[in-house]
Amino acid sequence: MPDEFGLIARLFVPLATGYPGALGLTDDAALVDVPPGRRLVVTADAMVAGVHFLPDDPPDLIARKLVRVNLSDLAAKGAVPHAMLLCAAFPHGTTDDWLDRFGAGLAADVAAFAVPLIGGDTVATPGPLTLSLTALGLAEPGRELLRSGAAPGEGLWVSGTLGDSALGLMVLQGSLTVPDEDAAFLADRYRLPQPRTTLGPRLIGLARAAMDVSDGLGGDLGHICKASGVGIEVEVERLPLSPAARRAITTDAGLLAKCVSGGDDYEIVLTAPSGADQAMGALSAELGVALTRIGRVVPGTSVTLVDGQGRALPDSPRGYRHFTGG
Amino acid sequence: MPDEFGLIARLFVPLATGYPGALGLTDDAALVDVPPGRRLVVTADAMVAGVHFLPDDPPDLIARKLVRVNLSDLAAKGAVPHAMLLCAAFPHGTTDDWLDRFGAGLAADVAAFAVPLIGGDTVATPGPLTLSLTALGLAEPGRELLRSGAAPGEGLWVSGTLGDSALGLMVLQGSLTVPDEDAAFLADRYRLPQPRTTLGPRLIGLARAAMDVSDGLGGDLGHICKASGVGIEVEVERLPLSPAARRAITTDAGLLAKCVSGGDDYEIVLTAPSGADQAMGALSAELGVALTRIGRVVPGTSVTLVDGQGRALPDSPRGYRHFTGG
Repeated sequence: MPDEFGLIARLFVPLATGYPGALGLTDDAALVDVPPGRRLVVTADAMVAGVHFLPDDPPDLIARKLVRVNLSDLAAKGAVPHAMLLCAAFPHGTTDDWLDRFGAGLAADVAAFAVPLIGGDTVATPGPLTLSLTALGLAEPGRELLRSGAAPGEGLWVSGTLGDSALGLMVLQGSLTVPDEDAAFLADRYRLPQPRTTLGPRLIGLARAAMDVSDGLGGDLGHICKASGVGIEVEVERLPLSPAARRAITTDAGLLAKCVSGGDDYEIVLTAPSGADQAMGALSAELGVALTRIGRVVPGTSVTLVDGQGRALPDSPRGYRHFTGG
Repeated sequence: MPDEFGLIARLFVPLATGYPGALGLTDDAALVDVPPGRRLVVTADAMVAGVHFLPDDPPDLIARKLVRVNLSDLAAKGAVPHAMLLCAAFPHGTTDDWLDRFGAGLAADVAAFAVPLIGGDTVATPGPLTLSLTALGLAEPGRELLRSGAAPGEGLWVSGTLGDSALGLMVLQGSLTVPDEDAAFLADRYRLPQPRTTLGPRLIGLARAAMDVSDGLGGDLGHICKASGVGIEVEVERLPLSPAARRAITTDAGLLAKCVSGGDDYEIVLTAPSGADQAMGALSAELGVALTRIGRVVPGTSVTLVDGQGRALPDSPRGYRHFTGG
C-alpha cells in the first residue's frame, strides 16, 4: 500500500477536478459556496466490512454502494447532490490492485452523479475496512421533504421495488437458492443500490413526508409515525416486488416478511395527499421509476400491516437493527 | 451496548438541541443555512484506536480529541466552527459506561466550542474503535487562509508550543521518563489538543498562508512549499518549546528532532509579511496565545532547518506518515 499522500494523489485528487473549492485535496479543508436561495442538506453514513457489505464484495461496488447510500438520504430530502467527503480506514495489506478498483468505483459514481470528492481522510487500520462518507446536497429552504410532514388521510407511496436487496444478501450468503438470472439481479440490487436522485427533487410539492428505506420498510415507517405523530397502514399485497422477488416468494411465502423488514432497499417512501395520485402517475411515467401506492396514513402511532380487506396481519414489522440484528 | 437508536437518543440527541436544522437527529439528513456573505468550510478526519490514540485512553478525551483535530483544520483556514457530524464504529462489547464517558466528552466540547452535533451514523464493528468527524465552519468568501498564499520574504510563525504532544505520546508509551508534573502536562497535550479556534479567524488579513500542524512541522511545511511554490527556512533554535519539553530536550538533545517531526501539535503555522510583526505581537498579547516567528519564506521548493547563523542543518525533516510510521 502506498503512503497516505501517494494514495490520495493517485486515487482521489482526480475526483476533485472541476471543483475549485476542493483545493486539489491539498489543503486542510474544502470551501463550499452555497448559492443564494439554497440550503445545504448534509448526511453521513458509515459502512464496515462484514457488517454492511461482504468483505469479498468487488471493491468498486463497495465504493459505489457507499456513495449511493448517502445520495439516497439526500434524494429522500429532495436535495440535489453537490459534493462529498470520504473517510477511509484501509486494512494493513490492502493491495494496490484493490485500491485501484475501489478508486475506479468511486470515480464511476462521482461522474454518474456529478458529485465531486472534495475532502476527507485516509488512514490505515488493523481492523476491517471501515468507510464513512459525508454527502452535501442543495435544496430550497423550507421545501425539503422531512419525515415529520405526514398527516392522516394521505396515501403512502414507495419508489421502485422492495426486498430485492434483502433477498440478494441471502443469495450471496448461500441461504437462498434461486435461478441464476434472478440471483444475479438480486445480488446486484444488494451491491449496487440505485439512489433516487432524480426522483427526490421532483417530489417537492407532491410529497408531504419522505424518507429513504434503508433499514427495512417496516422499521423505517415507524420513524415517520414518530416524527409526524401518525399511524401508517401498509397493504402487504400492494408491495411492489420485482419479478425475481415474486418468484422467490412463490417458492417460500416466508420471504415476504424479509422484503418488509430486510433493509438496504434505498428506495424513497413518501406520503402524498390523495389528490396527488394523477401527478404521481405522471411523474412515474416521465422518470421511468415505479411509484406504487402501498397504504395510507391514519390516526395512531405505529405501523400496521393489513391485508386487502384492511384486516391487520398478526406480525408487526421491525427494521433491521444494527446492534441486535433482530 | 444499547441498540443504535437508543444510543443516538441517549448520547447524541442532546448535542443537537438548539440547532433546528439537525431535526433532532431523527431524519435522513440535516439542514444547514449558510448566511449571505459566508462560505462553508468543511473538513473530515478519521481516528482509529491503536493508530491515532491509545485504546485505553479515557473515552471522554478520545471524543474531545476527535472534535479538536477537526476544529484545528477549520481554525487554520480562518473559519468559525458551525456544526459537526460524527460517524462512530463502536467495537462489540463496548460498555454503557464507556459510551457514557465518550458522550460526556463530546458534550463538553460541543459546549466549549459552540459546535452542535447535527448528524452522523453509529454502527458496530468487529474491529477497533473507528471514528470520523466532519466539521463545518463558516468564513468570508475569498478571505480564507490557504496553504497556497505564501511568498518569499514573508516570516514564518507558529502558535503555542511544538513537540509537547510527540513527547507526551512517548511518555504514555513508556519510552520517555520525565518528572511527574512534566509527564502529566505532556500527556495532556497529546490527549487534549487546544485547537486555535479563536486565533484562526483573527489571522485573516494578517496571515498570507496557514495550515494546522498535525503531521509534524517539518512535513507539514512541505505542503505549504508545494502549494505556494516556495522554500521555507526554519530556525530550529527559535522553535517555541514548553518548559516541560525544554527540560526533556536538555536531558536528551535527540528529542528536539521529535519536536520537529512528531505531529499531533494542532497549532497553526502561518506566513505573514514582515510588516506584520507588530500586529502579530499585539494579537498574541490580546488572545494570550504565543505567536513565535520561527523562520522565513524563501525562493525554493523545500523545507530547510537552519541554525542561528542561517546554516542548513544536516537532517531534513519528515512528517509523520500514517502508512509508514517513518
